[in-house]
Amino acid sequence: MTAKKTNKLKIINDPIYGFITIPNTLIFDLIEHRYFQRLRRVSQMGMSYMVYPGAHHTRFQHAIGCIYLMQRAVRVLRFKGVDVSEEEENAVYIAILLHDVGHGAFSHALEHSIVTGISHEEISLKFMEDLNDEFDGKLSLAIKIFKGEYKRMFLNQLISSQLDMDRLDYLKRDSFYTGVSEGNINSDRLIAMLNVKDDVLVIEEKGIYSVEKFIVSRRLMYWQVYLHKTGLVAEKILVKILQRAKELVEKGTELSASSALSYFLKHQINTHNFTDDTLEIFSKLDDYDVLSAIKEWTSCNDRILSALSKMLVDRKLWYVKIQNNLFNEGNLAQTKKEVQGDLQLTDEEMAYFFIQDTVSNQAYSEVANQIQILYKDDSVKNIVDASDHLNIQTLSKPVVKHFICYPKIKF
Amino acid sequence: MTAKKTNKLKIINDPIYGFITIPNTLIFDLIEHRYFQRLRRVSQMGMSYMVYPGAHHTRFQHAIGCIYLMQRAVRVLRFKGVDVSEEEENAVYIAILLHDVGHGAFSHALEHSIVTGISHEEISLKFMEDLNDEFDGKLSLAIKIFKGEYKRMFLNQLISSQLDMDRLDYLKRDSFYTGVSEGNINSDRLIAMLNVKDDVLVIEEKGIYSVEKFIVSRRLMYWQVYLHKTGLVAEKILVKILQRAKELVEKGTELSASSALSYFLKHQINTHNFTDDTLEIFSKLDDYDVLSAIKEWTSCNDRILSALSKMLVDRKLWYVKIQNNLFNEGNLAQTKKEVQGDLQLTDEEMAYFFIQDTVSNQAYSEVANQIQILYKDDSVKNIVDASDHLNIQTLSKPVVKHFICYPKIKF
Amino acid sequence: MTAKKTNKLKIINDPIYGFITIPNTLIFDLIEHRYFQRLRRVSQMGMSYMVYPGAHHTRFQHAIGCIYLMQRAVRVLRFKGVDVSEEEENAVYIAILLHDVGHGAFSHALEHSIVTGISHEEISLKFMEDLNDEFDGKLSLAIKIFKGEYKRMFLNQLISSQLDMDRLDYLKRDSFYTGVSEGNINSDRLIAMLNVKDDVLVIEEKGIYSVEKFIVSRRLMYWQVYLHKTGLVAEKILVKILQRAKELVEKGTELSASSALSYFLKHQINTHNFTDDTLEIFSKLDDYDVLSAIKEWTSCNDRILSALSKMLVDRKLWYVKIQNNLFNEGNLAQTKKEVQGDLQLTDEEMAYFFIQDTVSNQAYSEVANQIQILYKDDSVKNIVDASDHLNIQTLSKPVVKHFICYPKIKF
Amino acid sequence: MTAKKTNKLKIINDPIYGFITIPNTLIFDLIEHRYFQRLRRVSQMGMSYMVYPGAHHTRFQHAIGCIYLMQRAVRVLRFKGVDVSEEEENAVYIAILLHDVGHGAFSHALEHSIVTGISHEEISLKFMEDLNDEFDGKLSLAIKIFKGEYKRMFLNQLISSQLDMDRLDYLKRDSFYTGVSEGNINSDRLIAMLNVKDDVLVIEEKGIYSVEKFIVSRRLMYWQVYLHKTGLVAEKILVKILQRAKELVEKGTELSASSALSYFLKHQINTHNFTDDTLEIFSKLDDYDVLSAIKEWTSCNDRILSALSKMLVDRKLWYVKIQNNLFNEGNLAQTKKEVQGDLQLTDEEMAYFFIQDTVSNQAYSEVANQIQILYKDDSVKNIVDASDHLNIQTLSKPVVKHFICYPKIKF
Repeated sequence: MTAKKTNKLKIINDPIYGFITIPNTLIFDLIEHRYFQRLRRVSQMGMSYMVYPGAHHTRFQHAIGCIYLMQRAVRVLRFKGVDVSEEEENAVYIAILLHDVGHGAFSHALEHSIVTGISHEEISLKFMEDLNDEFDGKLSLAIKIFKGEYKRMFLNQLISSQLDMDRLDYLKRDSFYTGVSEGNINSDRLIAMLNVKDDVLVIEEKGIYSVEKFIVSRRLMYWQVYLHKTGLVAEKILVKILQRAKELVEKGTELSASSALSYFLKHQINTHNFTDDTLEIFSKLDDYDVLSAIKEWTSCNDRILSALSKMLVDRKLWYVKIQNNLFNEGNLAQTKKEVQGDLQLTDEEMAYFFIQDTVSNQAYSEVANQIQILYKDDSVKNIVDASDHLNIQTLSKPVVKHFICYPKIKF
Repeated sequence: MTAKKTNKLKIINDPIYGFITIPNTLIFDLIEHRYFQRLRRVSQMGMSYMVYPGAHHTRFQHAIGCIYLMQRAVRVLRFKGVDVSEEEENAVYIAILLHDVGHGAFSHALEHSIVTGISHEEISLKFMEDLNDEFDGKLSLAIKIFKGEYKRMFLNQLISSQLDMDRLDYLKRDSFYTGVSEGNINSDRLIAMLNVKDDVLVIEEKGIYSVEKFIVSRRLMYWQVYLHKTGLVAEKILVKILQRAKELVEKGTELSASSALSYFLKHQINTHNFTDDTLEIFSKLDDYDVLSAIKEWTSCNDRILSALSKMLVDRKLWYVKIQNNLFNEGNLAQTKKEVQGDLQLTDEEMAYFFIQDTVSNQAYSEVANQIQILYKDDSVKNIVDASDHLNIQTLSKPVVKHFICYPKIKF
Repeated sequence: MTAKKTNKLKIINDPIYGFITIPNTLIFDLIEHRYFQRLRRVSQMGMSYMVYPGAHHTRFQHAIGCIYLMQRAVRVLRFKGVDVSEEEENAVYIAILLHDVGHGAFSHALEHSIVTGISHEEISLKFMEDLNDEFDGKLSLAIKIFKGEYKRMFLNQLISSQLDMDRLDYLKRDSFYTGVSEGNINSDRLIAMLNVKDDVLVIEEKGIYSVEKFIVSRRLMYWQVYLHKTGLVAEKILVKILQRAKELVEKGTELSASSALSYFLKHQINTHNFTDDTLEIFSKLDDYDVLSAIKEWTSCNDRILSALSKMLVDRKLWYVKIQNNLFNEGNLAQTKKEVQGDLQLTDEEMAYFFIQDTVSNQAYSEVANQIQILYKDDSVKNIVDASDHLNIQTLSKPVVKHFICYPKIKF
Repeated sequence: MTAKKTNKLKIINDPIYGFITIPNTLIFDLIEHRYFQRLRRVSQMGMSYMVYPGAHHTRFQHAIGCIYLMQRAVRVLRFKGVDVSEEEENAVYIAILLHDVGHGAFSHALEHSIVTGISHEEISLKFMEDLNDEFDGKLSLAIKIFKGEYKRMFLNQLISSQLDMDRLDYLKRDSFYTGVSEGNINSDRLIAMLNVKDDVLVIEEKGIYSVEKFIVSRRLMYWQVYLHKTGLVAEKILVKILQRAKELVEKGTELSASSALSYFLKHQINTHNFTDDTLEIFSKLDDYDVLSAIKEWTSCNDRILSALSKMLVDRKLWYVKIQNNLFNEGNLAQTKKEVQGDLQLTDEEMAYFFIQDTVSNQAYSEVANQIQILYKDDSVKNIVDASDHLNIQTLSKPVVKHFICYPKIKF
């Protein structure tokens, strides 16, 4: 007499989208799996919270948000007559849910320090394959789509392209949590403009301004948030800390660290020696291992490691100089000398406390997977040709900035 | 013992900014004045509600919103050490409050039809001068600033420039009410970046991305909202209706209309014959006069006027073709002939039911009052030179589009 | 190869919900109909914009918003296993779309002045029946549901009950446009908690706090917004104006007014003499007729009508005294005498310029259509019994307030 | 010529309030202090992210948000003529900034497990006194106000009362981050209604509905969020883990833990033996120490500790039964027996895996520091008497719920 109760078909509260419905029990079980639960302990934006204190959201929320957008995308496409089978639908949900499951602690920091021989995408794939075994092959199509090996390209493009659900969620989400509201994009409208032509994802003509706006927002988020100089320095210090720790451990120093972190400090991991056991240990490594180790290292015996760790923990960040041009060699040498003198650093220490590097960003790539615009007469142009007003060629030129940074005072 | 109650120092609820405080009793009295109260009956976006049903906000709210932003701007500038006297502060509040008080019904439609010999800015000034008499000269400095005759240019720029409080409010407000959230700008951040150098308004260096974003949002709002083809046609029909009515009245036809509207249908008004009496009558003319007259005209004897009026009132909008290039002369003649045949129109009628026109928009003007960027070394560059990534030269090129429109079916 | 384009299947931008999809072409055609288009010219909140300048939204938007919520409700119920046929689905869309189509200008003002013999619900029904003829009986089920004559009660409850889509939209919308954010309700969550038991609409147990919150928000909106004393006075003046005009017209005075308004000023309309012709004329009457007439009346010969009209147009609102208790008879007589003396009013004038009345509000009704809570054990309790913490009995006691009002100064 | 640059006078981006200005350099230096920076690593809502994945905000953001609201409150009060000296202003900023600086990891969990002999308020005070030494007595007035020892009571009430800035921020913030939008309160309006009478904080009469709404929202947040049964169980498991760990350590077992955590596991701390050294160690203890230890304990030798830890880390949460009445003794004994049998637990284990407890909440306290309403005639009533519609007596009755919980399956 009463309609059935919704038991496992759970709803998740999201500050951005409101209620997110978990589409089916397989997705529910994947979310409950400890591999996926780990993402609750991996922050989405790494060290950005040092600049934007609101930015403590996790990869868990992001992945759930992606599922939500994907549900809308599938609904829009079907409404427009694009055929998406139930199996394909389920596969794109799985693929987008798990696309980042291989991300390490503090997002990209590990990849630049202690897990350098293998990318997070490869690790995501390893997790998916492991889960495919556990769930009796139910992830096979998702994996095929994820790897770009399925014939209907648009399904892969929904997961990985210049307008995929990943970007549509993270730009919106990062804008929301940082409070940088100019970065906010209208993912609803962008999705409403999606269509498919010859199995390729396209945007309908009237969505062209929204695409332009999306590209400009993305660029703004890069310079104002992701590559904000303070966040950048914090990230660099984090990488230096992990590199130093690895060096020390390799030389035989005992360093306090969780078992999972210890493993990756001790071993040189690459694509080839990343076994099932490695995956198991990786599945236990998250932000908490890294930051709690660094907190302990603030009082370790190595002066470099303890100083760097203290700077990060107590947020004693560095002086940064950033510019569009290369630094003049002569001036640079001079600055280095002065810094070394002022801070009284050895040559070895200079390698840790004086960083010279570049950052670059490309708001739009003309090479990879162009955004295609579908006209009313059924013709298709890529956005670079379609947008005669905004200069997308200019936007797709990678912008490189050069910076140096070092501690403000003697420590 | 208790603190004094705030009586006249009223607070106004605004859906966008929350509470807006009226800064002093003079401002309060100006708001209460019937000249200003008229703005409650003048919609901000004219016919745009035909496309965006939420867009029924008025010039009243916009002007109040401008006061709010101006209060923030003054606070920011003083915080940064810019000297703004109390008298100047008050004057910019008055000037921004009244900058649009001369706007006619449905915003720009009157200026293109029955009040063609004088601009709304001139009428605003006439209102201000009239109020200045009534308020014993208390508006003198505001008028001076409004006219650009005060020595400290930045005060005028806060009221009228490419980054004035007017634009900062209307873009945000129109985006809010239409639901076109991509047009949303971060007026808070833009204001936080304001500074003054040599009495000129500047934006601090780190606000450069926000300025770029602002320009792109403005462009998007133009194409997606202000110049949306359906709204455009509605506006054109409205103008045609008023022109036809004026013609008929001039030829001696009796048309039902309010006394204020009748006056402007009967008389040819320009800068020179716009007397105090004209101002008094103008102060009684608003959207309600115009739309209620048009409703009556749906059943008048003139076939042109009644047909146009019915189309507008019942929203039987026209077919529109819009393109980047000029229409080919031959094709155009052919189309005209076909339309005239299909709709069975006389030549006179064709002038009302077949419209050929252009729209243009310039996201940023390189000529007028450039946006200046202030660098840390105290140098200043204009945004066109400062922004090496976004192509502002491209954005400042006026974009022209050509369109034709005509009714879809015989009437 | 390309998926079909969505032509008539339009999307409407809403500031609150984002994109609203029109579910099918019948709904689309009803929206396009001039009966429904009239709602673009009927404000949702009558005179409330005198207090909350943002409150210029219309019945058009509200009805569209209701369709959106109804789509969600149908989706939720089906997801929970409630069987809703396609025909029923379509019927509830039509019924909610048209539930307010019979609302007169400025919402309730007409019902209290010049169209007193028939309620807006009855007029809505007349419109629906007329449309049913025009659309070949396609509205029959909608009408049956609207009238409460269909067997499955929950469908009617979605349209008209203490938790219907009407309330869920208007509370949210009015809160949004006035900026009184405390009135905001979470319609999403309330809808997510809906279920059906024995064909009656119920709320699942865990939604109980949300229901309580909804009732408190509704009560807050009543006292803070709908019954705000300034808005109340404006409404009262409007009613007095229309009553006076009707009186004058009945006595043979010529008053400037649109043909539609003239008709209702001249004739005494009730349920019985409300013919198809009356409906046709009613379909042309909206806010613009009323306000533009009042503007003309500011300079009419009748001192009462012109004075009242000027007060409304120029917003010279009255002094109000509002209290929980009845006014003391003696004091009241004294006040009246003083006011009459101060303002130098005749006895006839006093009936227009000294208003004594009551307002009342009942946040929740224990009599009509109770909100039912569904427990996990399948039992059902009404909210009054289910909510042991909030005192819903208290909330359902009608609160009556007494007020007097009169002009502040001699006119 | 150019206005001075704002160097230290920083602005912080907040997702809720937009830009927050740090009022002066002393506040800035306190924020930069490592004691305060620790709050970046202490989550505001403990284990609630297990239910609401968005709820990862920290005590750092909350404290900064409080400063923002306090700035508004001071501005409102001064605008109404309440005299607040610059020294007092600064003192309330400091006091609200530091009011929670003594909160331990995961908020309340430590207080119920390993730091039981001293409250977080007492520790906050110890931090303040320590900082007062470091900053040459500049915190003296703040401390006096914080302790309630300053003559002008309203200053203390702004920091700690039923309508203090603490509550106004955390309800708004927690509602925002959880996505439970019904809990959202209008802190702006509540602050706009503040006034002071006889040095006591009062709310102006017309704010009464907002106060009622605030109380109802608070109650809703308690039952729907803070005391959500899943969050509750997670919190209980956390407490059990820490208790078990402490027991083991006391018995001499070696447990992997950070130095700071080890200290508190080893020592029994109370008000009397909480020395400067304890404070120093406490200042190093945060969520990272606790969660990373628990992650290590998932593989420790103690079956109880490892099982509990695994449940928390992998989110294998328990079955909960919650009800308004006491559990029947007989049934309870029976359930316990069954659970013990099913899960095959020893008696010792039962103490950790079968929890019977109560939660209670009081939406409004009639005893402590009543909310006072100020009427236009200058009289004051407390809200319980002032609100004749909402039953505040009912709301102020503490509600107690009884629950039991235990693992769902054998482990």
